[in-house]
Amino acid sequence: MASRQVQLKTPKGTRDWFGSDCVLRDHIFETISGVFKRHGAVPLDTPVFELKDVLTGKYGEDSRLIYDLQDQGGEACSLRFDLTVPFARWLAMNKVTQVKRYQIARVYRRDQPAIARGRLREFHQIDFDIAGEYDTMIPDSEILRIIVEVFKALELDITIKMNHRKILDGIFTVAGVPGDKIRTISSAVDKLDKSPWADVKKEMTEEKGLPEEVADKIGEYVKEKGSVREILDFLKSDSSLVEDQNIRAGIEDIELLLVYVEAFNISSSISFDLSLARGLDYYTSLIFEVLHTPQQTEVPGLPKGGKDQATQVGSIGAGGRYDNLVGIFGKKPIPCVGISFGADRIYTILKAQKEREAAAPTQEIDVYVMAFGAGKEFTGLLPERLQVCGQLWDAGIRASFSAKAKPKLPQQFKAAEGVPLAVILGQDELADGKLKIKVLGLPDGHPEKEGVLIEKTDLVEEVRKRLQR
Amino acid sequence: MASRQVQLKTPKGTRDWFGSDCVLRDHIFETISGVFKRHGAVPLDTPVFELKDVLTGKYGEDSRLIYDLQDQGGEACSLRFDLTVPFARWLAMNKVTQVKRYQIARVYRRDQPAIARGRLREFHQIDFDIAGEYDTMIPDSEILRIIVEVFKALELDITIKMNHRKILDGIFTVAGVPGDKIRTISSAVDKLDKSPWADVKKEMTEEKGLPEEVADKIGEYVKEKGSVREILDFLKSDSSLVEDQNIRAGIEDIELLLVYVEAFNISSSISFDLSLARGLDYYTSLIFEVLHTPQQTEVPGLPKGGKDQATQVGSIGAGGRYDNLVGIFGKKPIPCVGISFGADRIYTILKAQKEREAAAPTQEIDVYVMAFGAGKEFTGLLPERLQVCGQLWDAGIRASFSAKAKPKLPQQFKAAEGVPLAVILGQDELADGKLKIKVLGLPDGHPEKEGVLIEKTDLVEEVRKRLQR
Repeated sequence: MASRQVQLKTPKGTRDWFGSDCVLRDHIFETISGVFKRHGAVPLDTPVFELKDVLTGKYGEDSRLIYDLQDQGGEACSLRFDLTVPFARWLAMNKVTQVKRYQIARVYRRDQPAIARGRLREFHQIDFDIAGEYDTMIPDSEILRIIVEVFKALELDITIKMNHRKILDGIFTVAGVPGDKIRTISSAVDKLDKSPWADVKKEMTEEKGLPEEVADKIGEYVKEKGSVREILDFLKSDSSLVEDQNIRAGIEDIELLLVYVEAFNISSSISFDLSLARGLDYYTSLIFEVLHTPQQTEVPGLPKGGKDQATQVGSIGAGGRYDNLVGIFGKKPIPCVGISFGADRIYTILKAQKEREAAAPTQEIDVYVMAFGAGKEFTGLLPERLQVCGQLWDAGIRASFSAKAKPKLPQQFKAAEGVPLAVILGQDELADGKLKIKVLGLPDGHPEKEGVLIEKTDLVEEVRKRLQR
Repeated sequence: MASRQVQLKTPKGTRDWFGSDCVLRDHIFETISGVFKRHGAVPLDTPVFELKDVLTGKYGEDSRLIYDLQDQGGEACSLRFDLTVPFARWLAMNKVTQVKRYQIARVYRRDQPAIARGRLREFHQIDFDIAGEYDTMIPDSEILRIIVEVFKALELDITIKMNHRKILDGIFTVAGVPGDKIRTISSAVDKLDKSPWADVKKEMTEEKGLPEEVADKIGEYVKEKGSVREILDFLKSDSSLVEDQNIRAGIEDIELLLVYVEAFNISSSISFDLSLARGLDYYTSLIFEVLHTPQQTEVPGLPKGGKDQATQVGSIGAGGRYDNLVGIFGKKPIPCVGISFGADRIYTILKAQKEREAAAPTQEIDVYVMAFGAGKEFTGLLPERLQVCGQLWDAGIRASFSAKAKPKLPQQFKAAEGVPLAVILGQDELADGKLKIKVLGLPDGHPEKEGVLIEKTDLVEEVRKRLQR
């Protein structure tokens, strides 16, 4: 092992997670997977890399962002780009016909990172999908219900933006977009949440060759948004739209969906937004996106929020129905609908909230076990401290001690800062079978301020009693 | 998205984890991290790949097993090979002086896989390390204590094989091995747990040019094993060994360690074994390995076990002290000692145990919500079922329903197999504000065999009451 100077950093777009950051992130994972389990979901975990062919041709333009492994003899492999394609591969491989599965894992994209906004090259996705044949729009509504439950559990106000691919494609047809340009025009509309209409129109006309009046007609339609009922009424009131077969099919779906989301008591969280397009090619009908829309009027450091205004992080979840993806792998198609939560963006929001609150001390230990004594006679009582720690650990109590043979008392008290309880060992007390127990940080005058002497045999009981206070 | 036939498999040496396999694996993770937290450990999570330079020159011969990422413009990166080197990189990068950290994550080795024995190319490690300056052998003893606590929590009988690098190196010197051959002879001895002495001796003499009498002398020493006290006495009784400075230093360490492991009440789990060498270069003093040594006399499908006989999976944990690794990255060395648990091998053992026990039905749902009715008048009561499910989910109860608009009753009962409770909705009962609740699988003659009618407003309470039974 020769000593050589290496760059001390993590690779571009990646980060370490330590201590309270890790704990907050895992809290998000546990809260969300708790909701999934309530709905009968089963966990799946797939390898971090897949055969390269499995990913090929699934992500359109974004495929250039895939990380490949080096050819070291053997199979060509790539790091997973999302959790949806591995899920589809698993469904096809295991001939599964119906499943509710969830997966929490990291995915990899060679994109330009923006770490402060929670956009990294290695990031976490939390996916829930329902695969299989069911009656129309029932699984779709359950996914929307799950979104609402997840953010209720995380105590974040959200709005679900929703649209239907068939309605959007129908609008393009009615506006006069030729069939072979529908997907590329859809990609342009997808940019409306980041770019102003003028830029999107320019892309449609100058870059993609659409006549100006067609672009303007699209512009009129896609500015419409409101409650599911309102937009359904708007669509049905426009006779040129209702003539389109795709739009009629979409309206029929959404009418059904409305009944179900009302039964689920979540319709007030949904905004039907005709501008929502979603980039990925594989969606076939319902599509949706989750925006953080805080209700508080004043939050220092965040822009004033309203039902219609997302915070800077962008969407914190997105999904839709993809009925044809699994069929690409196997012979039998399996219709699917699912949601992917953006764990790192949710983390960024919760972390900012936490930092505004008073910082609670991170307390990793319940009891600090100390030795009392000094001078030549003082042995340090190390074996005795180890024995007491062992007793506490056996009882499931979090305990620590100074890893010094003869520690000084002030150093031990310093190490115990933030710990609720000290157990203090003294040579003479031990000879009588006794220990001192001391609640740290008690006010002056409290009867236990100086600690209490207890029987060594009562240790666990006396510690438990004081930890429960 | 053109349809093309791809190979439906995961890459060589990798696997999917689904359902109960995933649950058992996560149970291992949670049990072990629970022990770590009891000792005040803090979680760390590092990226799945590191800069290639960070890994270079740390693993000796095994470096050829490292996975590299393809050069797609940018930094040269490799998948992590273990969790120890990323931890050392993190310590140096963040100038941490003292920490107890744990990490549970996947690591990658392009080795020959043996999936049935839990050896894969993508596998899990569970690491706990104590970094920083402490008094001699105190953190080392705590690591040994943690090993015992971990396997007590997992209910597996184990033996910790332990040795000291300085004692082993001293034995080689006393036997007559030249200084520059010590590491390569140590590698040969490391194979003694898999190969017979004759093969190892052949490697030493024929391949590595050791005189036969030197090899024989080594053979005599490394066959010694026993309790810590016994082997200490053996070493001290041999005057030629005690003359060696390394051996004297090692004996001093182990004398201290014995006091601490006795205080921790774990000395009976430790076997001091002079043949233990450990492959990795970076260990500097104490080294250890954990073997599964079941106490039961008869376990079908497993060899008869004894304190000294490991099951086929090999070691299920290993570690030691490495005081020089962090210094390679930064200017300041930080002494460390740690243990890495082989999660996949532990999984293999627990899974085999579970399969011998009666298979418990996997129950993912508490309540199945059904509609009762048939014929033309029957609406399917779908919105009503959704509303009831919503109520149960709001109360944190796991619930499901048939995603059919008009499901048949027998199909619904079939879907509810293994679920403890059914809530059954009927048109007439609902009109009266009532629901039927039915504990499934009750014996004939039970007063609730046919279910009981309850007020809809009491639903959650009545369900909870029956789930608690």
